[in-house]
Amino acid sequence: MKKNTFLALLLLNGSVLLAQNNEAKTIKEIYNSSLTNSKCYSWLDYLSNSIGGRLSGSTNAEKAVQYTKSEMEKLGFDRVYLQEVMVPKWVRGTKETAFILDNKTKISVPICALGGSIATPKNGLTAEVIEVQSLKELTELGVDKIKGKIVFFNRPMDNSVIESFEAYSGAVDQRGAGAKEASKFGAVGTIIRSMNLRLDDFPHTGNQSYGDIPMSQYIPTAAISTNGAELLSKSLKKNPKLTFYFKQSCEQFDDVLSYNVIGEIKGSEHPENIMVVGGHLDSWDLADGSHDDGAGVVQSMEVANIFKNLGYKPKNTIRVVLFMNEENGLRGGKKYEELAQANKENHIFAFESDSGGFTPRGFSLDCDEANFNKITSYKNLFKPYLIHSFEKGHSGSDIGPLTSKTIVKAGLHPDSQRYFDYHHAANDTFDAVNKRELELGAATMASLIYLIDQNGIVK
Amino acid sequence: MKKNTFLALLLLNGSVLLAQNNEAKTIKEIYNSSLTNSKCYSWLDYLSNSIGGRLSGSTNAEKAVQYTKSEMEKLGFDRVYLQEVMVPKWVRGTKETAFILDNKTKISVPICALGGSIATPKNGLTAEVIEVQSLKELTELGVDKIKGKIVFFNRPMDNSVIESFEAYSGAVDQRGAGAKEASKFGAVGTIIRSMNLRLDDFPHTGNQSYGDIPMSQYIPTAAISTNGAELLSKSLKKNPKLTFYFKQSCEQFDDVLSYNVIGEIKGSEHPENIMVVGGHLDSWDLADGSHDDGAGVVQSMEVANIFKNLGYKPKNTIRVVLFMNEENGLRGGKKYEELAQANKENHIFAFESDSGGFTPRGFSLDCDEANFNKITSYKNLFKPYLIHSFEKGHSGSDIGPLTSKTIVKAGLHPDSQRYFDYHHAANDTFDAVNKRELELGAATMASLIYLIDQNGIVK
Repeated sequence: MKKNTFLALLLLNGSVLLAQNNEAKTIKEIYNSSLTNSKCYSWLDYLSNSIGGRLSGSTNAEKAVQYTKSEMEKLGFDRVYLQEVMVPKWVRGTKETAFILDNKTKISVPICALGGSIATPKNGLTAEVIEVQSLKELTELGVDKIKGKIVFFNRPMDNSVIESFEAYSGAVDQRGAGAKEASKFGAVGTIIRSMNLRLDDFPHTGNQSYGDIPMSQYIPTAAISTNGAELLSKSLKKNPKLTFYFKQSCEQFDDVLSYNVIGEIKGSEHPENIMVVGGHLDSWDLADGSHDDGAGVVQSMEVANIFKNLGYKPKNTIRVVLFMNEENGLRGGKKYEELAQANKENHIFAFESDSGGFTPRGFSLDCDEANFNKITSYKNLFKPYLIHSFEKGHSGSDIGPLTSKTIVKAGLHPDSQRYFDYHHAANDTFDAVNKRELELGAATMASLIYLIDQNGIVK
Repeated sequence: MKKNTFLALLLLNGSVLLAQNNEAKTIKEIYNSSLTNSKCYSWLDYLSNSIGGRLSGSTNAEKAVQYTKSEMEKLGFDRVYLQEVMVPKWVRGTKETAFILDNKTKISVPICALGGSIATPKNGLTAEVIEVQSLKELTELGVDKIKGKIVFFNRPMDNSVIESFEAYSGAVDQRGAGAKEASKFGAVGTIIRSMNLRLDDFPHTGNQSYGDIPMSQYIPTAAISTNGAELLSKSLKKNPKLTFYFKQSCEQFDDVLSYNVIGEIKGSEHPENIMVVGGHLDSWDLADGSHDDGAGVVQSMEVANIFKNLGYKPKNTIRVVLFMNEENGLRGGKKYEELAQANKENHIFAFESDSGGFTPRGFSLDCDEANFNKITSYKNLFKPYLIHSFEKGHSGSDIGPLTSKTIVKAGLHPDSQRYFDYHHAANDTFDAVNKRELELGAATMASLIYLIDQNGIVK
């Protein structure tokens, strides 16, 4: 090797090392800022305890739009604005009631209507129950055995699976399509075992869809708590002729106007390159949506707060986007993409936090091999913060619709063990979120955004 | 390379691969067993909710000895026995009271006596307060400024530290030696900011020692909640002449007889090689000690339950040891080692779980380089279970005294972010423990024990 080449390589290596040292230093400052000087926990306190559940189309959702817009305006963005989006408006109505009617006994069980469900008749609905473990089983049973009955979907989430989201994916078809499919066989209603790994008394709501069946064939559908499901199943084994009563008064209204909330920091070098970080501002109505997705909302805002505290000026444009209507329509995510296309915007990176405010473990990366390898090369920089999981996978629902010539998408991957204890249930409240775990998540997000801002993506 | 050598290497690689496949399969079975068929959560329910706090020398501690012995007798051990050990008996007495007396206002603040503290005079103690941040500061202030006062140690745990145990180590000298040191400068009492990373109203107890100062110089010492500490500090800034009142009636009695609880499975190939897995059965008295260390106790018992469910016969002798008196004396750990020495036992491995029942992240390994490398070579086998942290460090207090010619010691390393929310405080209760997180910890322990049982240690 020639001496000059050698010296050049030495200098190059030196500058790479120097760059890594600088990056390590900045990442340390990011975590320090988040753990000692963050606002995310108090924002979440307000969203959860002063506003509460934020179902699309509700007054609370609009309060959340105004609150986060006004808080973002304090964060030194170049621009904070609202993006209009029409959203569905589904209202739960009176609290649901349900009973197992077994000979002369009448046992109350906790249920809740699933999002988008129709109401039962005004005085409720009573029918015999047929328990199934899967959608497929409906075909095996056929119309004869299903017609006129309530179909009870009771396949539990698989506790032997390590990542709880995988267990969720393995069971949630019952909730999403149970009513639609059972209706085709003449069922009069469906009761779905809650998507919950533990046994407790909380029914967990969530979206369901009647798909393309005619409205005349819509049947009411509700989730039952896991303890309730166990009891119903046991009771059915003893008396297959028992009946089940439930009453719900939910209603679908016309779409209403709502908003994505957006804060933008213009890039100092490549303002045309846009990096999105966000979560969804809407939540289900049974609780405050503190984990789903209040956490993701305030963590995304905290990214901007951290950069402000550090005086960090991004090279690329950063947008904090609080999407509306992830839970029952994804209208915010779709509208954001529609306008990005119309405005010929170039998104290079999109990052979503929508898996709860728990201790962060890593990233779920949706990108090509070259970018996956590039991001994985940052692993050592994250090691001091116990961030170890760099895996390919789903990034986030709201950023799902986003397309660009080259775009890297990522989802924050927190510890998932407790997530389905709270997901879509009445206990998804502020006290279920730990301040440090939330802050570590925000710092982890800010660190990856910083690294991608500094080093770009592979185009 | 000669053909024969090549073939031999191929066969060797093949058998290594086969062994790893078998190990991966068994580890999967271990996790499955723990996540779907464990007893640890219901044992913890009983320990926490039917027995409660288990301070050494208390009736509850003795109930816990009898309960765990009787449960262990159902697990197919070759032998379950008690090991006699004399333990200190310190009793808290009436609930403590404390007030900030500032001009005409009297503000109640939550305190609790520290373990081993003496009582205040019967009607309590009132004195001016001097706030310090460290033991060192006492020397700087000197007798003139301290004499006759209550010293208030108020250095918080450092929130910017990622591992909360490290933040604890950086602050706990105030609790352990604050009274002893302040007494040397004529203080009449000490109040210590609770070892807690968050701001709340729980005082956190814990051990303290008067060391070798004469009994006549012992002064009462208590922990104050973090919110209380903030208030006291703020009030002192406004009025340095305010006084503080506290009353506690704790008392040290003579040592009493208690027990380590031990279950033993004789090794099928090397019965002379002993592997210990354990936690401590005693706890502080303010709550049920569900994380500290009910979790470690039931996880250690679960290791035996998992092996029983799998029909796994260990090659080496396995002992589940539930140590008595970790919190305020470590007498159980010392006694165990004393008898191991007397009986010329050969311990090859000791594993403790005493960092809370949270999602396991890895192992803290106390061993030589060769064994550290050997255990780290198992990393890939643990990857599917998100176990990633293999670091050198402290293994466990109870197994600390244990010596042997060659011994590998390990501590389970769970996620530590929430630990000090509960540690030694009234909220360390059953509901703070998540079933799956607890079970994952037990499976992680059983998996490492299985691997070491199969592959031995480097001698």
